[in-house]
Amino acid sequence: MIALDDVRRAAAVLRGVAHRTPVLTSRTLDAVAGASLVLKCESFQRTGSFKFRGAFNLMASLPEGERVGGVCTVSSGNHAQAVALAARELGIPAVVAMPGDTPAAKMDATTGYGAEVGTFDRYVVAQREAGARLQAERELPFVSSHDDPRISAGAGTAMLELVEDAGPLDAVVAPVGGGGGLAGYATVATALCPGVRVVAAEPDASRILSRSLAAGRRVELPVPRTIADGQQLGVLGRFPFEVLRRLVDETVSVADTEIVDAMRLLFDRLKLVVEPSGAIALAAALSGRSDLAGRRVGIIVSGGNVGADRFCDLLADGATRVPPSVPST
Amino acid sequence: MIALDDVRRAAAVLRGVAHRTPVLTSRTLDAVAGASLVLKCESFQRTGSFKFRGAFNLMASLPEGERVGGVCTVSSGNHAQAVALAARELGIPAVVAMPGDTPAAKMDATTGYGAEVGTFDRYVVAQREAGARLQAERELPFVSSHDDPRISAGAGTAMLELVEDAGPLDAVVAPVGGGGGLAGYATVATALCPGVRVVAAEPDASRILSRSLAAGRRVELPVPRTIADGQQLGVLGRFPFEVLRRLVDETVSVADTEIVDAMRLLFDRLKLVVEPSGAIALAAALSGRSDLAGRRVGIIVSGGNVGADRFCDLLADGATRVPPSVPST
Repeated sequence: MIALDDVRRAAAVLRGVAHRTPVLTSRTLDAVAGASLVLKCESFQRTGSFKFRGAFNLMASLPEGERVGGVCTVSSGNHAQAVALAARELGIPAVVAMPGDTPAAKMDATTGYGAEVGTFDRYVVAQREAGARLQAERELPFVSSHDDPRISAGAGTAMLELVEDAGPLDAVVAPVGGGGGLAGYATVATALCPGVRVVAAEPDASRILSRSLAAGRRVELPVPRTIADGQQLGVLGRFPFEVLRRLVDETVSVADTEIVDAMRLLFDRLKLVVEPSGAIALAAALSGRSDLAGRRVGIIVSGGNVGADRFCDLLADGATRVPPSVPST
Repeated sequence: MIALDDVRRAAAVLRGVAHRTPVLTSRTLDAVAGASLVLKCESFQRTGSFKFRGAFNLMASLPEGERVGGVCTVSSGNHAQAVALAARELGIPAVVAMPGDTPAAKMDATTGYGAEVGTFDRYVVAQREAGARLQAERELPFVSSHDDPRISAGAGTAMLELVEDAGPLDAVVAPVGGGGGLAGYATVATALCPGVRVVAAEPDASRILSRSLAAGRRVELPVPRTIADGQQLGVLGRFPFEVLRRLVDETVSVADTEIVDAMRLLFDRLKLVVEPSGAIALAAALSGRSDLAGRRVGIIVSGGNVGADRFCDLLADGATRVPPSVPST
């Protein structure tokens, strides 16, 4: 477990490095939700997602001698960019293993931050295995995307800012993928807002947390087929699962079509560009499947990394266009 | 002319009513521009554009007895929603004449704020004439979208906030449509930032300000065919032209394709939903046609009212899809 103080220490580490992202509200959303929603917009975080907070916090905690040669990780998504930028900020190299068919824009963004990118064939080698191989080959510290208390403490700083800016909350809704972000949010929310209801939003195709909670252990799933590519993990992290089983009150699972509807609403009414996993918490709050009526609800909008072309494809096709079954961490 | 004090008074009127909108920066944009850009995001203003500031300021200034029966205006665009919401805030009725073929979403937004909407056939009756008829028929104060010092003073509060938040600027770039917004921005920028360069961004199809400056009078144009529907006016306002001829240093005209490129960049890198006229100032700054190298440049992002479907159409088609030749004020 981590404590509020770990998150406060992470906030000090991140000061002047991570953005303090805006908190937005909308009367239209409130009318639709029948609740008072406050949106923490991590889409405006550096690298376009909350991942930068945890990656930087973890990497900054490595002893100078341990990190000076660089770090390595594996990711096809937001974590790759987060590690790349954090390494640049710390003045160290980063090596990122990415699936060879990762969209060029994501690879370019990662190399654009100065990381070395190596590719692997994800139809031959599993992502975790690719990470283990890279670590063995390079002998560099491996930066987990979600299974480390320092990742959760870093992510938790977003909730700290949200409560500071919006005041006490009756409920918080956040996405769960590997669990690292939600573990941080839940730690902060329960510490600062007595009686707060912690709601985890997961794709219908995954339901990774609800299944794991029901089983009392981290179940392993085939990689879920969902547009929410930040939540395509096949298993929760060890560390976050221990936190989540204690602190999460409720899981809400969401269809891809509901995610697209939420993305459209965020675009049309809040003028926000939000990626599928970034919109899932709002989709959950609007689904009616959690009783939030009349409450003051914090919503984590976790990221905005969806290119314009893919955004338009998603809105045109709804949930019929599903990406390849590969996790993005 | 208006003075800085008029804008400060407007700021007091708007306090707690209009949003103080965020100021965003991007290292990527700076690298592309070769300058330090600070974006004032009026896309997050109430009703989705800067228009709310001026409309509320003007309407709040009307004596109680004059406004109690309501106000009227004519608009197919952002001004309609601005007047509708300002009227609701002031507890008075609003009547808005809109072209009968205005997109349903814009009409719904206007009636959603509680305004009465009447339609006219814009292929038979000019917009200005429709406004005059409405005013004569209802005998209500007419709220101009751009040709009133109180509109400019209200709009100018955005520049006041920008300079307060970002510090002194070397240049400001803002769209010019009817001129009401720019007159306010220019007043504030020149008062607070000695030596500031005031750059007006206008669509290639219009060039309304550069033509008027060259002619030394407000030239009248056929309604320009451009995707920048906030800038489809055929003539500048009398009041703003007197301000702009004194305070504008430079005009930059921009192709619709450049506007679309800027909208895409704002989407992909800043996660912002911006309508065409809202992106034109950035497009001008990135065009290389104004020498902004190394300067600290304020960019007015004037609005975000572009529906997701139209946004996707624009990005797919570039500038080939031009709306009907009708002004939107």
